Amino acid sequence: MLPTDGSMVRPISRGLTLRALIIWFILLQFIRLSSGAKTRHFKWEVEYMYWSPDCIEHVVMGINGQFPGPTIRAKAGDTVVVELTNKLPTEGVVIHWHGIRQLGTPWADGTAFISQCAINSGETFHYRFKVDRAGTYFYHGHLGMQRSAGLYGSLLVDVAEGEKEPFHYDGEFNLLLSDWWHKSVHEQEVGLSSNPFRWIGEPQSLLINGRGQYNCSLAAQYSDTNSSQCKLRGNEQCAPQILHVRSNKTYRLRVASSTALASLNLAIGNHKMVVVEADGNYLQPFKVNDLDIYSGESYSVLITTNQDPSKNYWLSIGVRGRLPATPPGLTILNYQPTSASKFPTSPPPVTPPWNDYHHSKMFSKSIFALMGSPKPPTSYDRRISLLNTQNKIDGFTKWAINNVSLALPPTPYLGSIKYGLRNAFDQKSPPENFPDNYDVMRPPINPNSTTGSGVYMFGLNTTVDVILQNANALSDNVSEIHPWHLHGHDFWVLGYGEGKFSAKDEKKLNFKNPPLRNTAVIFPYGWTALRFVADNPGVWAFHCHIEPHLHMGMGVVFAEGVHHVKKIPNEALTCGLTAKLLYKNRGR
Amino acid sequence: MLPTDGSMVRPISRGLTLRALIIWFILLQFIRLSSGAKTRHFKWEVEYMYWSPDCIEHVVMGINGQFPGPTIRAKAGDTVVVELTNKLPTEGVVIHWHGIRQLGTPWADGTAFISQCAINSGETFHYRFKVDRAGTYFYHGHLGMQRSAGLYGSLLVDVAEGEKEPFHYDGEFNLLLSDWWHKSVHEQEVGLSSNPFRWIGEPQSLLINGRGQYNCSLAAQYSDTNSSQCKLRGNEQCAPQILHVRSNKTYRLRVASSTALASLNLAIGNHKMVVVEADGNYLQPFKVNDLDIYSGESYSVLITTNQDPSKNYWLSIGVRGRLPATPPGLTILNYQPTSASKFPTSPPPVTPPWNDYHHSKMFSKSIFALMGSPKPPTSYDRRISLLNTQNKIDGFTKWAINNVSLALPPTPYLGSIKYGLRNAFDQKSPPENFPDNYDVMRPPINPNSTTGSGVYMFGLNTTVDVILQNANALSDNVSEIHPWHLHGHDFWVLGYGEGKFSAKDEKKLNFKNPPLRNTAVIFPYGWTALRFVADNPGVWAFHCHIEPHLHMGMGVVFAEGVHHVKKIPNEALTCGLTAKLLYKNRGR
Repeated sequence: MLPTDGSMVRPISRGLTLRALIIWFILLQFIRLSSGAKTRHFKWEVEYMYWSPDCIEHVVMGINGQFPGPTIRAKAGDTVVVELTNKLPTEGVVIHWHGIRQLGTPWADGTAFISQCAINSGETFHYRFKVDRAGTYFYHGHLGMQRSAGLYGSLLVDVAEGEKEPFHYDGEFNLLLSDWWHKSVHEQEVGLSSNPFRWIGEPQSLLINGRGQYNCSLAAQYSDTNSSQCKLRGNEQCAPQILHVRSNKTYRLRVASSTALASLNLAIGNHKMVVVEADGNYLQPFKVNDLDIYSGESYSVLITTNQDPSKNYWLSIGVRGRLPATPPGLTILNYQPTSASKFPTSPPPVTPPWNDYHHSKMFSKSIFALMGSPKPPTSYDRRISLLNTQNKIDGFTKWAINNVSLALPPTPYLGSIKYGLRNAFDQKSPPENFPDNYDVMRPPINPNSTTGSGVYMFGLNTTVDVILQNANALSDNVSEIHPWHLHGHDFWVLGYGEGKFSAKDEKKLNFKNPPLRNTAVIFPYGWTALRFVADNPGVWAFHCHIEPHLHMGMGVVFAEGVHHVKKIPNEALTCGLTAKLLYKNRGR
Repeated sequence: MLPTDGSMVRPISRGLTLRALIIWFILLQFIRLSSGAKTRHFKWEVEYMYWSPDCIEHVVMGINGQFPGPTIRAKAGDTVVVELTNKLPTEGVVIHWHGIRQLGTPWADGTAFISQCAINSGETFHYRFKVDRAGTYFYHGHLGMQRSAGLYGSLLVDVAEGEKEPFHYDGEFNLLLSDWWHKSVHEQEVGLSSNPFRWIGEPQSLLINGRGQYNCSLAAQYSDTNSSQCKLRGNEQCAPQILHVRSNKTYRLRVASSTALASLNLAIGNHKMVVVEADGNYLQPFKVNDLDIYSGESYSVLITTNQDPSKNYWLSIGVRGRLPATPPGLTILNYQPTSASKFPTSPPPVTPPWNDYHHSKMFSKSIFALMGSPKPPTSYDRRISLLNTQNKIDGFTKWAINNVSLALPPTPYLGSIKYGLRNAFDQKSPPENFPDNYDVMRPPINPNSTTGSGVYMFGLNTTVDVILQNANALSDNVSEIHPWHLHGHDFWVLGYGEGKFSAKDEKKLNFKNPPLRNTAVIFPYGWTALRFVADNPGVWAFHCHIEPHLHMGMGVVFAEGVHHVKKIPNEALTCGLTAKLLYKNRGR
């Protein structure tokens, strides 16, 4: 019989604890061995280099001499360790692992001023995190607009040893999509922060795996424009990566969008696609002719190579949601043994009209979670409404959420909240909603718009609803698409609607099989309803994934259970007020 | 009678000490009041902004919305406090106070990776230092090539209240000279660090107080080139600042060169100049028609307005030492009340031929200290010879000193030496000289060239001789000018000579009245002999002041008496291994 008196338990339980620990470690090793989970080490150096992503030479931010950066490939349950050294002469750097929830490792989320101090020039930071779930992810810079400078790459997680995906395929391709400007990111940043405001304009090129063609077209012979036919040998940095397939097979295309601005549509001539995964979550499979993909999203689609095998077919990406001023990005689906240099007999698929929002909405509304996926809690503990407006603040053009434009503080929140540094950021919680009578159809009136650094604090494990509310921008009759991305969690996308969200919209929400995502779009003048459980102690960015929009303040900061966060590595804290705090007892 | 037994002295001396301290403080206040010494506070924000230094719009690094940065004006003995906030979105920043010796404040020298950690984006650093001596100085960025990006301004120190300069003048003008590129500094840096190497080329424009004209000439009507006449209203950012003078007066022109590359020559039509100050040290006055000035140098010259007062006169700067591909920088000396818009009757003074090194050497050799100036010690404790070569290291083009190309470590030396962090940099002292049989007339053979971060450590208060030895660069028959700048000290320039320095040159050295400087040039294939006293505890850069040359490793690091350095402010240490050291006792 065990003693029930606490004071007597101690010595015994100490003995028990030690034995239990030993057994636990043995078990852990056993589990690790049996599951095949590995620690995968990467040693990366970030540096600027000359590169020709779209056949025009430019300075890009590369990793280990590569652009895009090296692909990380791991299995669910693996631990990824990236030893990242900053070889930029004057800039800091961080890398965000987009879609990885960083359960228990909030300091590895790679968001400058939020989860960590930027890595100083010449220094090394150790990202160590578990990739707990199979899926198609990517990584990218998260300081200033360094993602736009080319700091991104793919992160692909396979199912754990012995596990199976809920769909079959014979082979796979990875397509990391991005957009590219010829104006340097530094100059883009200055323009956005200037008064008068200078917009970055539309991208010069769309890139597939970092490859596009600016001064020529792969498909010039089909077009009636005056673009010239590309003359590429195939070994150029801008030459397209051909997708070599065999007939009558099923291929998985992993597609992720790291664009700075462009919303994209992807289509393959003559081939339908079955959408099976989004942001690392399985979907109820559905068939489409073309795929809308917004910045921050990822999908897996299956294609069956059931077309005439003596031909090749275009894969094309084009711009949605903004009057396109950028030619499509192209590559070729090559049915082997047909020569890859044989041109498709038809022109590339035509992207739906940029402003055919009905098409986009139909696509978004076709996405449901695979049966058996986790369902959302049936009720929420707290609901916040986030009004997205464009505002003038002291003459500068900004994006604001409930009239507050996010200005990140020099001290990262994770450390400042954990250590109670009240001077580190605005202590007043930002507004939870906006005036009932706000007219989302008209340009905002700006008197109370401010910049701020306040945080939405959530009780740990509470269920939070977020109603993202779109509105009119500064110009009349303009409302833009914004893909909102949440760090540290997935959310259920409960629904999309038109105009201002109201009580009557409640019943339209889908609680049965809403998809889990980390990124969801708001359509012009519309709303999007999200639900998530604040179950991951840490501080998490939630923001428009359009790089210049975030630079202009279009984001908020969420925090939950920060006192439960374990010891933050020193290397994440050596800046701002956390540095001062840790130094304060220092003698001479 | 005072007790002589130490143990008995203590209680009494404590009493004495307190009283002495009080008296001392009262005295100090009195001295301060009587001398009028002040603490001058500045609050600066560094940020990128659009500017048109040469009538072409570009991104420049400005301070408080100004380019060049605000002029600091103080009196000898004053304390300058600059609260510097970094408003750059991704870059660190520091500012070096060029010519200020930082006696007792080595952490305020503003050299990234040497005296301090770069100031992180969003953070503030407090520069606090005494300007102990009157003179013409300037300040500039000292991280990466941020000086080239426009981060510079003037620092002018007048004699203390009640003191007099050893020359008379009725008015003064300040001329901060620089050169300007249209290619961004970020791209320049990448090119220099690339393999194949890409040189930055010659500057597009020369600037006087940040103003030049790229697409036109102020003096087009005098030239037979096809440059068009500038059409400026006068309020443009690129419009020249006119020097308004009255007849029959004496004016002091303070001239400092912050060029990234260009060696300059300054001349004023019809006016001779009397050189009276160099780098904050008074000179034996001497008269010249034109003034050679290298990057990192400053001069004061006196002009007498004794010419036809109904006319105006050109002030012109042109490139020396490199085949010029840059038009001269121009402004006008306007005799009031003559209209400033009246063109001079003669063309601008012609810069001596770029390769007329005889002219340059004659100028340099005319510079002597004003009688009564401090004389060098008659002997040295240690002499090091520094061979300047261009080398290939792993395929990269570098500059090396005694075969070592400087690669700054992530942890600033000042902290790492003071705290004995032996892993912070190469512990082996770099070579003190080079092989006797080295042929300075031929391109270097590269087998042993390396990059390194070693330090020359000097005994405190020892006298050090440095023989700077020029040599052939990588190409045949090329040897360039290098202006070497020493931080934390002035040195006596003992002499210049041709070819390789040898014992027979010893007797040519000037120990009688050598000028004190902080910058001295080595001429092609020549040597320059310097002497200084290592009397300033700290770690000090000594380097070629040509920005791309330093970026390519053309510098060394000196240190002396670092254990005498008082408490380094925390804000200078929050990076690299010093950050780790200070954090090491941190709990959870």
